[in-house]
Amino acid sequence: MPPRVYLAGPDVFLPDAQARAATLKAICARHGLVAVSPLDEIAEPPEWARLAEAARLYRRNEAHMRSCAGIIANLTPFRGPSADVGTAFEVGFMRALGRPVFAWSTVAEGLATRTLMLAGAPAADEPFAAELRDPDGLLVENFGLFDNLMLDGAICASGGGLALAASAARWGDLGPFETAVRAAAACLGGRAA
Amino acid sequence: MPPRVYLAGPDVFLPDAQARAATLKAICARHGLVAVSPLDEIAEPPEWARLAEAARLYRRNEAHMRSCAGIIANLTPFRGPSADVGTAFEVGFMRALGRPVFAWSTVAEGLATRTLMLAGAPAADEPFAAELRDPDGLLVENFGLFDNLMLDGAICASGGGLALAASAARWGDLGPFETAVRAAAACLGGRAA
Repeated sequence: MPPRVYLAGPDVFLPDAQARAATLKAICARHGLVAVSPLDEIAEPPEWARLAEAARLYRRNEAHMRSCAGIIANLTPFRGPSADVGTAFEVGFMRALGRPVFAWSTVAEGLATRTLMLAGAPAADEPFAAELRDPDGLLVENFGLFDNLMLDGAICASGGGLALAASAARWGDLGPFETAVRAAAACLGGRAA
Repeated sequence: MPPRVYLAGPDVFLPDAQARAATLKAICARHGLVAVSPLDEIAEPPEWARLAEAARLYRRNEAHMRSCAGIIANLTPFRGPSADVGTAFEVGFMRALGRPVFAWSTVAEGLATRTLMLAGAPAADEPFAAELRDPDGLLVENFGLFDNLMLDGAICASGGGLALAASAARWGDLGPFETAVRAAAACLGGRAA
Protein backbone atom coordinates (compact mmCIF):
# COMPACT_ATOMS: atom_id res chain seq x y z
CA MET A 1 0.00 0.00 0.00
CA PRO A 2 1.44 3.40 -0.93
CA PRO A 3 1.71 5.84 1.98
CA ARG A 4 -1.22 8.23 2.44
CA VAL A 5 -0.65 11.95 2.89
CA TYR A 6 -3.16 14.60 3.93
CA LEU A 7 -3.32 17.72 1.76
CA ALA A 8 -3.89 20.72 4.03
CA GLY A 9 -4.23 24.25 2.76
CA PRO A 10 -6.50 27.04 1.65
CA ASP A 11 -6.59 25.35 -1.77
CA VAL A 12 -10.06 24.19 -0.77
CA PHE A 13 -11.21 27.82 -0.98
CA LEU A 14 -10.05 28.34 -4.57
CA PRO A 15 -12.76 28.71 -7.23
CA ASP A 16 -11.62 25.46 -8.88
CA ALA A 17 -11.08 23.53 -5.64
CA GLN A 18 -12.04 20.09 -6.98
CA ALA A 19 -9.82 20.43 -10.06
CA ARG A 20 -7.03 21.73 -7.87
CA ALA A 21 -7.30 18.70 -5.58
CA ALA A 22 -7.14 16.39 -8.59
CA THR A 23 -3.98 18.13 -9.81
CA LEU A 24 -2.30 17.88 -6.41
CA LYS A 25 -3.27 14.22 -6.14
CA ALA A 26 -1.84 13.45 -9.56
CA ILE A 27 1.50 14.97 -8.56
CA CYS A 28 1.51 12.90 -5.38
CA ALA A 29 0.69 9.76 -7.35
CA ARG A 30 3.69 10.35 -9.60
CA HIS A 31 5.81 10.20 -6.46
CA GLY A 32 4.17 7.06 -5.13
CA LEU A 33 1.91 8.73 -2.57
CA VAL A 34 -1.86 8.52 -2.17
CA ALA A 35 -3.06 12.02 -1.36
CA VAL A 36 -6.19 12.62 0.67
CA SER A 37 -8.03 15.91 0.17
CA PRO A 38 -10.36 17.48 2.75
CA LEU A 39 -12.91 17.45 -0.08
CA ASP A 40 -12.86 13.63 -0.30
CA GLU A 41 -15.97 11.84 0.87
CA ILE A 42 -15.75 8.90 3.27
CA ALA A 43 -18.15 6.29 4.55
CA GLU A 44 -19.59 8.16 7.51
CA PRO A 45 -20.75 6.50 10.73
CA PRO A 46 -24.55 6.69 11.06
CA GLU A 47 -24.30 8.90 14.15
CA TRP A 48 -22.80 11.70 12.06
CA ALA A 49 -26.17 12.17 10.36
CA ARG A 50 -27.38 14.27 13.28
CA LEU A 51 -24.41 16.68 13.02
CA ALA A 52 -24.56 20.09 11.38
CA GLU A 53 -22.68 20.24 8.09
CA ALA A 54 -19.64 22.03 9.51
CA ALA A 55 -19.34 19.57 12.38
CA ARG A 56 -19.62 16.68 9.93
CA LEU A 57 -16.87 18.17 7.76
CA TYR A 58 -14.75 18.60 10.88
CA ARG A 59 -15.15 14.95 11.83
CA ARG A 60 -14.38 13.90 8.27
CA ASN A 61 -11.15 15.90 8.20
CA GLU A 62 -10.11 14.42 11.52
CA ALA A 63 -10.74 10.93 10.15
CA HIS A 64 -8.79 11.78 7.00
CA MET A 65 -5.85 12.98 9.05
CA ARG A 66 -5.81 9.96 11.34
CA SER A 67 -5.70 7.75 8.23
CA CYS A 68 -2.60 9.46 6.82
CA ALA A 69 1.10 8.87 7.50
CA GLY A 70 2.01 12.52 7.01
CA ILE A 71 0.75 15.95 6.04
CA ILE A 72 1.66 18.23 3.14
CA ALA A 73 0.50 21.71 4.11
CA ASN A 74 0.17 24.80 1.95
CA LEU A 75 1.40 27.57 4.26
CA THR A 76 1.17 30.31 1.63
CA PRO A 77 0.00 33.41 3.54
CA PHE A 78 -3.79 33.64 3.51
CA ARG A 79 -5.79 36.79 4.37
CA GLY A 80 -2.94 38.18 6.44
CA PRO A 81 0.75 37.69 7.07
CA SER A 82 0.44 34.06 8.15
CA ALA A 83 -0.92 30.73 6.99
CA ASP A 84 -4.59 29.77 7.00
CA VAL A 85 -5.66 28.91 10.57
CA GLY A 86 -7.41 25.71 9.52
CA THR A 87 -4.14 24.56 8.00
CA ALA A 88 -2.20 25.58 11.12
CA PHE A 89 -4.66 23.57 13.20
CA GLU A 90 -4.10 20.53 11.01
CA VAL A 91 -0.32 20.85 11.22
CA GLY A 92 -0.60 20.86 15.01
CA PHE A 93 -2.96 17.91 14.94
CA MET A 94 -0.64 15.79 12.80
CA ARG A 95 2.43 16.80 14.79
CA ALA A 96 0.74 15.67 18.01
CA LEU A 97 0.05 12.31 16.33
CA GLY A 98 3.77 12.04 15.57
CA ARG A 99 3.36 12.32 11.80
CA PRO A 100 5.93 14.27 9.76
CA VAL A 101 4.95 17.73 8.53
CA PHE A 102 5.89 18.81 5.01
CA ALA A 103 5.01 22.33 4.01
CA TRP A 104 5.26 24.67 1.07
CA SER A 105 4.56 28.25 0.04
CA THR A 106 4.63 30.36 -3.10
CA VAL A 107 5.67 33.33 -0.95
CA ALA A 108 9.25 33.15 0.26
CA GLU A 109 9.64 36.21 2.49
CA GLY A 110 9.85 35.54 6.21
CA LEU A 111 7.18 36.27 8.78
CA ALA A 112 8.76 39.44 10.14
CA THR A 113 9.03 41.05 6.70
CA ARG A 114 5.49 40.04 5.75
CA THR A 115 4.01 41.27 9.02
CA LEU A 116 5.70 44.67 8.86
CA MET A 117 4.79 45.07 5.18
CA LEU A 118 1.10 44.35 5.82
CA ALA A 119 1.09 46.63 8.85
CA GLY A 120 2.49 49.43 6.72
CA ALA A 121 5.55 49.66 8.94
CA PRO A 122 9.00 50.19 7.45
CA ALA A 123 11.12 47.07 7.19
CA ALA A 124 13.80 46.88 9.85
CA ASP A 125 17.33 47.69 8.75
CA GLU A 126 18.73 44.95 10.92
CA PRO A 127 15.96 42.39 10.81
CA PHE A 128 17.48 39.93 13.25
CA ALA A 129 18.99 42.37 15.69
CA ALA A 130 16.21 44.39 17.26
CA GLU A 131 12.93 43.60 18.94
CA LEU A 132 10.28 44.28 16.31
CA ARG A 133 6.80 45.56 17.12
CA ASP A 134 3.85 46.25 14.86
CA PRO A 135 2.09 49.64 14.90
CA ASP A 136 -0.18 48.36 17.71
CA GLY A 137 2.85 47.61 19.87
CA LEU A 138 2.48 43.85 19.53
CA LEU A 139 5.68 41.85 19.21
CA VAL A 140 6.61 40.54 15.76
CA GLU A 141 8.40 37.20 16.03
CA ASN A 142 11.82 37.79 14.60
CA PHE A 143 13.70 34.53 14.51
CA GLY A 144 14.27 34.58 10.77
CA LEU A 145 11.58 31.93 10.36
CA PHE A 146 9.00 31.47 7.66
CA ASP A 147 5.96 31.68 9.97
CA ASN A 148 5.07 31.45 13.67
CA LEU A 149 7.67 29.38 15.50
CA MET A 150 5.13 26.68 16.29
CA LEU A 151 4.75 25.97 12.57
CA ASP A 152 8.44 26.11 11.70
CA GLY A 153 9.22 24.22 14.90
CA ALA A 154 6.82 21.40 14.11
CA ILE A 155 8.21 20.98 10.61
CA CYS A 156 11.71 20.68 12.02
CA ALA A 157 10.91 18.57 15.10
CA SER A 158 8.83 16.13 13.04
CA GLY A 159 11.60 15.42 10.54
CA GLY A 160 9.61 17.07 7.76
CA GLY A 161 10.58 19.86 5.42
CA LEU A 162 9.64 23.28 4.07
CA ALA A 163 9.75 24.22 0.36
CA LEU A 164 9.56 27.90 -0.55
CA ALA A 165 9.44 29.70 -3.89
CA ALA A 166 9.03 33.38 -4.69
CA SER A 167 6.30 32.92 -7.26
CA ALA A 168 4.51 35.49 -9.38
CA ALA A 169 1.16 33.72 -8.90
CA ARG A 170 0.26 32.99 -5.30
CA TRP A 171 -2.10 30.15 -6.17
CA GLY A 172 -0.66 29.16 -9.53
CA ASP A 173 2.84 27.77 -8.99
CA LEU A 174 2.98 24.14 -7.90
CA GLY A 175 6.78 23.96 -7.98
CA PRO A 176 7.21 24.20 -4.19
CA PHE A 177 4.36 21.73 -3.73
CA GLU A 178 6.17 19.18 -5.85
CA THR A 179 9.37 19.78 -3.88
CA ALA A 180 7.43 19.07 -0.67
CA VAL A 181 5.89 15.95 -2.21
CA ARG A 182 9.32 14.69 -3.20
CA ALA A 183 10.57 15.17 0.36
CA ALA A 184 7.49 13.44 1.78
CA ALA A 185 7.95 10.51 -0.60
CA ALA A 186 11.60 10.14 0.41
CA CYS A 187 10.60 10.17 4.09
CA LEU A 188 7.51 7.99 3.94
CA GLY A 189 8.73 5.48 1.39
CA GLY A 190 6.71 6.49 -1.62
CA ARG A 191 8.16 5.36 -4.90
CA ALA A 192 7.67 6.70 -8.39
CA ALA A 193 5.49 4.37 -10.42
CA MET B 1 -3.06 18.15 42.36
CA PRO B 2 -5.15 20.82 40.62
CA PRO B 3 -5.63 20.29 36.87
CA ARG B 4 -3.11 22.04 34.62
CA VAL B 5 -4.29 24.11 31.64
CA TYR B 6 -2.20 25.55 28.81
CA LEU B 7 -2.76 29.23 28.02
CA ALA B 8 -2.55 29.66 24.26
CA GLY B 9 -2.93 33.00 22.53
CA PRO B 10 -1.28 36.07 21.10
CA ASP B 11 -1.16 37.43 24.66
CA VAL B 12 2.55 36.54 24.56
CA PHE B 13 3.00 39.30 21.96
CA LEU B 14 1.51 42.06 24.14
CA PRO B 15 3.89 44.70 25.49
CA ASP B 16 3.23 43.54 29.05
CA ALA B 17 3.28 39.81 28.29
CA GLN B 18 4.72 38.66 31.62
CA ALA B 19 2.25 40.74 33.65
CA ARG B 20 -0.56 39.53 31.43
CA ALA B 21 0.42 35.90 32.03
CA ALA B 22 0.44 36.52 35.78
CA THR B 23 -3.06 38.02 35.59
CA LEU B 24 -4.41 35.09 33.57
CA LYS B 25 -2.80 32.62 35.98
CA ALA B 26 -4.34 34.35 38.98
CA ILE B 27 -7.79 34.06 37.44
CA CYS B 28 -7.21 30.36 36.77
CA ALA B 29 -6.00 29.84 40.33
CA ARG B 30 -9.20 31.35 41.67
CA HIS B 31 -11.05 28.60 39.79
CA GLY B 32 -8.79 25.82 41.05
CA LEU B 33 -6.66 25.47 37.90
CA VAL B 34 -2.90 25.70 37.50
CA ALA B 35 -2.27 27.66 34.32
CA VAL B 36 0.86 27.12 32.25
CA SER B 37 2.06 30.00 30.08
CA PRO B 38 4.26 29.57 27.00
CA LEU B 39 6.56 32.03 28.75
CA ASP B 40 7.17 29.65 31.69
CA GLU B 41 10.62 28.15 31.94
CA ILE B 42 11.09 24.42 32.46
CA ALA B 43 14.01 22.18 33.31
CA GLU B 44 15.31 21.52 29.82
CA PRO B 45 16.99 18.29 28.72
CA PRO B 46 20.71 18.83 28.07
CA GLU B 47 20.31 18.03 24.37
CA TRP B 48 18.19 21.14 23.87
CA ALA B 49 21.28 23.28 24.45
CA ARG B 50 22.32 22.78 20.83
CA LEU B 51 18.98 24.03 19.49
CA ALA B 52 18.40 27.51 18.10
CA GLU B 53 16.28 29.67 20.39
CA ALA B 54 13.09 29.32 18.36
CA ALA B 55 13.45 25.53 18.20
CA ARG B 56 14.06 25.44 21.95
CA LEU B 57 10.92 27.53 22.57
CA TYR B 58 8.99 25.19 20.29
CA ARG B 59 10.11 22.14 22.26
CA ARG B 60 9.26 23.88 25.50
CA ASN B 61 5.74 24.70 24.36
CA GLU B 62 5.22 21.12 23.24
CA ALA B 63 6.35 19.90 26.66
CA HIS B 64 4.06 22.42 28.35
CA MET B 65 1.10 21.22 26.28
CA ARG B 66 1.77 17.54 26.93
CA SER B 67 1.80 18.32 30.66
CA CYS B 68 -1.65 19.92 30.62
CA ALA B 69 -5.11 18.41 30.86
CA GLY B 70 -6.68 21.02 28.61
CA ILE B 71 -6.12 24.23 26.70
CA ILE B 72 -7.63 27.70 27.10
CA ALA B 73 -7.03 29.50 23.81
CA ASN B 74 -7.41 33.19 23.03
CA LEU B 75 -8.92 33.14 19.53
CA THR B 76 -9.38 36.92 19.31
CA PRO B 77 -8.63 37.80 15.67
CA PHE B 78 -4.96 38.63 15.24
CA ARG B 79 -3.48 40.45 12.23
CA GLY B 80 -6.33 39.38 9.99
CA PRO B 81 -9.83 37.95 10.21
CA SER B 82 -8.82 34.79 12.08
CA ALA B 83 -6.99 33.67 15.19
CA ASP B 84 -3.21 33.66 15.60
CA VAL B 85 -1.75 30.68 13.70
CA GLY B 86 0.45 29.62 16.61
CA THR B 87 -2.68 29.40 18.74
CA ALA B 88 -4.53 27.47 16.01
CA PHE B 89 -1.60 25.05 15.86
CA GLU B 90 -1.79 24.52 19.61
CA VAL B 91 -5.54 23.92 19.51
CA GLY B 92 -4.97 21.22 16.89
CA PHE B 93 -2.15 19.73 18.91
CA MET B 94 -4.23 19.45 22.08
CA ARG B 95 -7.26 18.15 20.24
CA ALA B 96 -5.16 15.36 18.72
CA LEU B 97 -4.02 14.46 22.25
CA GLY B 98 -7.68 14.19 23.25
CA ARG B 99 -7.62 17.17 25.60
CA PRO B 100 -10.63 19.51 25.76
CA VAL B 101 -10.37 22.87 24.02
CA PHE B 102 -11.75 25.99 25.72
CA ALA B 103 -11.56 29.22 23.76
CA TRP B 104 -12.44 32.88 24.11
CA SER B 105 -12.45 36.10 22.16
CA THR B 106 -13.14 39.78 22.78
CA VAL B 107 -14.51 40.02 19.23
CA ALA B 108 -17.90 38.40 18.81
CA GLU B 109 -18.64 38.75 15.08
CA GLY B 110 -18.47 35.57 13.05
CA LEU B 111 -15.77 34.64 10.56
CA ALA B 112 -17.78 35.49 7.45
CA THR B 113 -18.57 39.00 8.65
CA ARG B 114 -15.00 39.65 9.76
CA THR B 115 -13.52 38.35 6.52
CA LEU B 116 -15.79 40.43 4.30
CA MET B 117 -15.23 43.53 6.44
CA LEU B 118 -11.44 43.23 6.26
CA ALA B 119 -11.62 42.55 2.52
CA GLY B 120 -13.64 45.72 2.07
CA ALA B 121 -16.52 43.74 0.61
CA PRO B 122 -20.12 44.55 1.50
CA ALA B 123 -21.67 42.29 4.09
CA ALA B 124 -24.08 39.79 2.62
CA ASP B 125 -27.78 40.49 3.03
CA GLU B 126 -28.50 36.86 3.63
CA PRO B 127 -25.35 35.73 5.37
CA PHE B 128 -26.19 32.06 5.62
CA ALA B 129 -27.90 31.61 2.30
CA ALA B 130 -25.41 32.32 -0.45
CA GLU B 131 -21.93 31.14 -1.27
CA LEU B 132 -19.65 33.96 -0.17
CA ARG B 133 -16.38 34.83 -1.92
CA ASP B 134 -13.78 37.45 -1.09
CA PRO B 135 -12.65 39.99 -3.72
CA ASP B 136 -9.97 37.48 -4.88
CA GLY B 137 -12.66 34.89 -5.59
CA LEU B 138 -11.66 32.71 -2.65
CA LEU B 139 -14.47 31.05 -0.74
CA VAL B 140 -15.42 32.51 2.64
CA GLU B 141 -16.58 29.80 5.01
CA ASN B 142 -20.16 30.62 5.83
CA PHE B 143 -21.43 28.18 8.40
CA GLY B 144 -22.30 30.85 10.96
CA LEU B 145 -19.23 29.85 12.97
CA PHE B 146 -16.81 31.95 14.96
CA ASP B 147 -13.69 30.94 12.98
CA ASN B 148 -12.50 28.26 10.56
CA LEU B 149 -14.55 25.11 10.99
CA MET B 150 -11.53 23.16 12.23
CA LEU B 151 -11.31 25.46 15.26
CA ASP B 152 -15.02 25.55 16.03
CA GLY B 153 -15.21 21.83 15.27
CA ALA B 154 -12.42 20.95 17.68
CA ILE B 155 -13.98 22.96 20.49
CA CYS B 156 -17.25 21.13 20.01
CA ALA B 157 -15.87 17.64 19.39
CA SER B 158 -13.56 17.86 22.40
CA GLY B 159 -16.33 18.72 24.81
CA GLY B 160 -14.89 22.19 25.39
CA GLY B 161 -16.49 25.57 25.02
CA LEU B 162 -16.28 29.00 23.40
CA ALA B 163 -16.83 32.29 25.25
CA LEU B 164 -17.35 35.44 23.20
CA ALA B 165 -17.81 39.08 24.16
CA ALA B 166 -18.10 42.19 22.01
CA SER B 167 -15.53 44.23 23.90
CA ALA B 168 -14.39 47.77 23.33
CA ALA B 169 -10.77 46.85 24.05
CA ARG B 170 -9.47 43.91 22.04
CA TRP B 171 -6.73 43.04 24.52
CA GLY B 172 -8.21 44.58 27.63
CA ASP B 173 -11.37 42.65 28.54
CA LEU B 174 -10.79 39.41 30.44
CA GLY B 175 -14.49 38.69 30.92
CA PRO B 176 -14.69 36.03 28.20
CA PHE B 177 -11.42 34.54 29.46
CA GLU B 178 -12.91 34.06 32.91
CA THR B 179 -16.00 32.48 31.35
CA ALA B 180 -13.74 30.02 29.53
CA VAL B 181 -11.80 29.33 32.73
CA ARG B 182 -15.01 28.61 34.58
CA ALA B 183 -16.05 26.12 31.89
CA ALA B 184 -12.62 24.48 31.94
CA ALA B 185 -12.74 24.18 35.72
CA ALA B 186 -16.19 22.57 35.58
CA CYS B 187 -14.93 20.10 32.97
CA LEU B 188 -11.53 19.30 34.43
CA GLY B 189 -12.49 19.25 38.08
CA GLY B 190 -10.90 22.46 39.25
CA ARG B 191 -12.37 23.83 42.44
CA ALA B 192 -12.37 27.32 43.80
CA ALA B 193 -9.95 27.61 46.71
